[in-house]
Amino acid sequence: MSDAVSPLATPFPALPAIAGVTPRVARAGYKDWGRCDLTYVELAEGTSVAGVFTRNVCCSSEVELGRIYVKQGLGRALVVNAGNSNAFTGYRGREAVEQIMAQVADHLGCAKEQVFVSSTGVIGVPLPKDKARAGVESALAAPECTWEEAARTIGTTDTFAKGATATAMIGDTTVTLCAIIKGSGMIAPDMATMLGYVFTDAAVEPAFLQQLLSAANLRTFSCITVDSDTSTSDTVLAFATGKAGNAPLASFDSPGADAFAAALEDVCRQLAHLVVRDGEGAQKFITVHVTGAVSDESARRVGLAIANSPLVKTAIAGEDANWGRVVMAVGKAGEPADRDRLSIGFGGTWAAKEGQPLADYDEAPVAAHLRGREIGIEVDLGLGDGSATVWTCDLTHGYISINADYRS
Amino acid sequence: MSDAVSPLATPFPALPAIAGVTPRVARAGYKDWGRCDLTYVELAEGTSVAGVFTRNVCCSSEVELGRIYVKQGLGRALVVNAGNSNAFTGYRGREAVEQIMAQVADHLGCAKEQVFVSSTGVIGVPLPKDKARAGVESALAAPECTWEEAARTIGTTDTFAKGATATAMIGDTTVTLCAIIKGSGMIAPDMATMLGYVFTDAAVEPAFLQQLLSAANLRTFSCITVDSDTSTSDTVLAFATGKAGNAPLASFDSPGADAFAAALEDVCRQLAHLVVRDGEGAQKFITVHVTGAVSDESARRVGLAIANSPLVKTAIAGEDANWGRVVMAVGKAGEPADRDRLSIGFGGTWAAKEGQPLADYDEAPVAAHLRGREIGIEVDLGLGDGSATVWTCDLTHGYISINADYRS
Repeated sequence: MSDAVSPLATPFPALPAIAGVTPRVARAGYKDWGRCDLTYVELAEGTSVAGVFTRNVCCSSEVELGRIYVKQGLGRALVVNAGNSNAFTGYRGREAVEQIMAQVADHLGCAKEQVFVSSTGVIGVPLPKDKARAGVESALAAPECTWEEAARTIGTTDTFAKGATATAMIGDTTVTLCAIIKGSGMIAPDMATMLGYVFTDAAVEPAFLQQLLSAANLRTFSCITVDSDTSTSDTVLAFATGKAGNAPLASFDSPGADAFAAALEDVCRQLAHLVVRDGEGAQKFITVHVTGAVSDESARRVGLAIANSPLVKTAIAGEDANWGRVVMAVGKAGEPADRDRLSIGFGGTWAAKEGQPLADYDEAPVAAHLRGREIGIEVDLGLGDGSATVWTCDLTHGYISINADYRS
Repeated sequence: MSDAVSPLATPFPALPAIAGVTPRVARAGYKDWGRCDLTYVELAEGTSVAGVFTRNVCCSSEVELGRIYVKQGLGRALVVNAGNSNAFTGYRGREAVEQIMAQVADHLGCAKEQVFVSSTGVIGVPLPKDKARAGVESALAAPECTWEEAARTIGTTDTFAKGATATAMIGDTTVTLCAIIKGSGMIAPDMATMLGYVFTDAAVEPAFLQQLLSAANLRTFSCITVDSDTSTSDTVLAFATGKAGNAPLASFDSPGADAFAAALEDVCRQLAHLVVRDGEGAQKFITVHVTGAVSDESARRVGLAIANSPLVKTAIAGEDANWGRVVMAVGKAGEPADRDRLSIGFGGTWAAKEGQPLADYDEAPVAAHLRGREIGIEVDLGLGDGSATVWTCDLTHGYISINADYRS
C-alpha cells in the first residue's frame, strides 16, 4: 500500500464473516515490503465458483488456468500473490502456479483444479517457487484474519483497502455477500479489470453463478476505466459456499434469484467504484451518464470514449467546463452520433443543447460543481433509448509521478 | 505559439517559393494574441486540390464543406483561422465559413467551392463574422509572406513553426513540394489529425493527387499519435499548381509518378514527425517498429496500441525499460498475437524473446538508450510478414500542465 491515501478513499466497511469462508494471510516476501503479500482463502467443500477474466491475449498462466478450471464449477481455495504478476514468464511462471495448486490441493485433499491462483505486480519476473512454497505453507498454518487484512494483503499500488457487502432474501433465508478487490492502475474495461473476489454463503449452482457474474460484470467492472490500459492478470471470482442453507439457486425461476442477482451486482458496482476511487493520481470521481444512444452498448462505448479521453480527464482535473472536449470524445467514439442533436451537461446543468452552446448558459453552477470531488458529465445523443453509466477519475500530475518511476 | 519551445524542436527548414502559390498573413484578432492569426494562400488558376479529413463525426463546418468541395478538384485559395476552431457552433459557425468563401471568391472571381477554409482553436464558440471579414480583407491586401510566417500563423499551442520540403524529377522537370503544418495536442490517427498543407508546382490531375495523398496519409499522419484524442477539425490539403510545366501526372503509368509519390510521402512523413516532436509536454520522440504481424494493418494497430498506452508513455518518460507494459499493450490491441512468440526490444537490444525475459539480458545499453531524446521500441510478433512504424512522444507532467488549464 502506498503512503498517501487517495482523497477519494472511503473507510473499509464492516464486513461480516461468511460461513464456509476462512481467510488467512502470510508473508512470502515477493518484494521487500514490510507486510503480508500472500492471501489464502479456504472454502467449504461443495463451494460453487464462477469467474470473469482479462481478454488481454498476453495473459498470465494464472488467468489461463483459472479460465479453464472455473468451468468445473467447484472451488476449495484461493491464493493471491501480491508484488509479482508472474505474467509473461513462460513455462517457469506456469510451473510456479501449478506448484501452488498442488501444494494446497495436497493439504486439503481436493483436486488441484479446485485451487484458484491470482498474482499481481510487476510483469516478466517468474514467481519464485521457493518463496511461494514457504509462503503458502505459512498461510496454511496462519490464524483466520479479518476481511480488511485480506483486502490490504492483495493490494499493490492501492492506497486504501477495498471491501463491499450486501444481503439478499432467498425465501426465508438471508444470504450475505462479502467482497474485496485490488486495483488502481492498468484499469480498462472489456473484461474484469482488476483482482476482485466475492464470497457468499448462498447456495447457487455454478452455471447460474457464472451467468449472474458475467451479467453483473458487463454493467460494473466493464463500465470503469482509469487509464485505458488492460492488465494481463485481471480476474474476478465469485464463490458461493451454500452454508446459508437456502434452496439452491439454479436459474431466474428459482425463488429469490432476482434478489441475489441484485445483491451480486450491488457488490460488484461497489467494488468497481472503489477501484476508480483509488485510480492512480485521482482527485475526482467522474460519473459519465449517456442517454439517447441507439443502444445500451453504443451508449457504453460513447461513455468509455469520454472516460478514456486524456483531454476530458485533464479538463476535469483543471476544473474546466470544457464541454468541447466532450464533443470531441463523442465524435471519435465510432458510434452513431449527430452533432446537431447532441447535448452536453455537467452536474445537471446543460452547457450545450442540440449541437450548439446554450445562449443563456450560466457557467457559475457548473464551475462550483467542478470544484467538488464527485463530478457528473451528462451526454444526450438525441437518437434513441440506449443509455449507460460509466465511471472514471481525472488525469493528474499524480498519475505521471506514480507511473514514471513505478518499477525502478 | 507557446513560450517554452519543445526540446524536440527542429529548426524551420529553408523552403523555396512555389510558382503559383502566394501566402499572406493578417491579424483577425480571434484571440488577444499579439500576432497574426489568419493565413491566406492564393493559388494559380487551374490548381489541383486533394484532401483528407477527420473522421470525428462531430466535425466542424469547415471539414464538412471541404470534404464536399475537394471533389470538384480545383483550388484557388486557402484561408486558415487560428484561435477558434468554429466546431460545434451550428448554423452560426457555418455562416461564418460561407461568408469567408464568398468574400474570397468575389475577390478572385472564382467559384466559392474553390476556396478552402480551416479553423483551429477552442471548440464551441462561433467564429465571429465581423473579425473574419476584416481579417480576410486585410490579408487580401497584405504583402506576400515567408513560409515560416505562414507556418507560425496557423499554429495555436504549437511551440515551434513546422515546415518540410522535397523535390522529384518528372521527366526532365524538377518539381518542388513545400508544406506546413500545425498540431501538438488532440492528436490521434485514423484520419488526418492536424491542419497540414502541401503545395507543389507539379502538374497532377486532381483524382491522382487524391489517390497519392490518401495513400501517403495511411503511412504518415495515420501512424502518429500524441494523446489518442481526435480533433473535430483535422485536415490535410494538397495543392498542385502545375507551374513547373511537367507533363501532368494522371496515374502511376505517367513517367515520374513514382518519384512524385515518394516525394509527397516524404513531406507528409516530415510533417507528421514534426507534430509528434511538438506533442504537448513531449520530452522524447518514440518510434515503435512492429514486425511479424499477420498484416501491415494489424502491425499498425498493435503499434498504435503501444503508442497510445499511458503506461508505456509514462515508462518512457521515466526512462524505465518496463517492457512488461509493452507486452500488456500488445495484448490489449485486439489483434492476433501469441504471448509465447512475442519479442520486445528497446533501441535495438532485445529484452524479451519468444514470450520470456532473456536470461542474459543486459539492461545497461537499454538504460543508456532511454536517457536519450530519440527512443526506439521494437516488437516482433513472430506470426507473419506484416510490419508498420508508428511515432509518438512520451507522457509527462508537461502534458497535464498544458491541458489542465488550456481554456481557463
